[in-house]
Amino acid sequence: MTTSSYDDQNIFAKILRGDLPSHKLYEDDSTLAIMDIMPRGDGHCLVLPKAPSRNLLEMDPAALSATMATVQKLANAVKQAFEADGVTLEQYTGAAAGQTVFHTHFHIIPRIEGVALKPHAGKMADNDILSEHARKIRAALS
Amino acid sequence: MTTSSYDDQNIFAKILRGDLPSHKLYEDDSTLAIMDIMPRGDGHCLVLPKAPSRNLLEMDPAALSATMATVQKLANAVKQAFEADGVTLEQYTGAAAGQTVFHTHFHIIPRIEGVALKPHAGKMADNDILSEHARKIRAALS
Repeated sequence: MTTSSYDDQNIFAKILRGDLPSHKLYEDDSTLAIMDIMPRGDGHCLVLPKAPSRNLLEMDPAALSATMATVQKLANAVKQAFEADGVTLEQYTGAAAGQTVFHTHFHIIPRIEGVALKPHAGKMADNDILSEHARKIRAALS
Repeated sequence: MTTSSYDDQNIFAKILRGDLPSHKLYEDDSTLAIMDIMPRGDGHCLVLPKAPSRNLLEMDPAALSATMATVQKLANAVKQAFEADGVTLEQYTGAAAGQTVFHTHFHIIPRIEGVALKPHAGKMADNDILSEHARKIRAALS
């Protein structure tokens, strides 16, 4: 894993370059936050560092620090937007951990008491519903 | 959740004060890393910020940054110590997300291809095995 090099044809690299669309939630110099298109729960979003890295182990410390500031911002926003009881944060490093896109990303999932997470990388969500959820999160951020 | 105040009688606060024992892996001015006593896989460890906070949402940005530097250090160490194929990072904010101790902590779990995670907060591990795993992780850190 650590010996492999970064492949800039992964889908998050394409989204960061603007070559693929996404439901954007937040952007700053170092990070981008978007909706996960296979949500494990309503409001499931992702925070991506803009700097290329395959996973947490390979991240530059400054990029990691900036990424976590955005993670915290989004965690607060999804909790507010979905009136959630809690928030799950996950980062998968390596296929053995469930990683499917090899650009580092952090999962943020609002949690409602008694509602279990759906499977990881399960079903594609309806695009209109994702748009509506993105709108709610952006409103909570502003 | 965000309106509740920090209870300094939680077990991680007691460990940080030295009032309860733990399998220590790493310590610096801002953070402590210890073994999880109910591991979801061999080498499952926890990183705690020393500053009191109930969860990710309430963390001071500087404390979060320092905590993630330790998380990255430990993620590398457990991957090496257990010759792991990947690493899972999780942070549970709120009981609805599975949080059971209300002092912020990050879970780091080395992952082996084809080995599923055991349930969260499941079975207490044998103390001698935890000691041996802690020794391996400390060796990888040094």
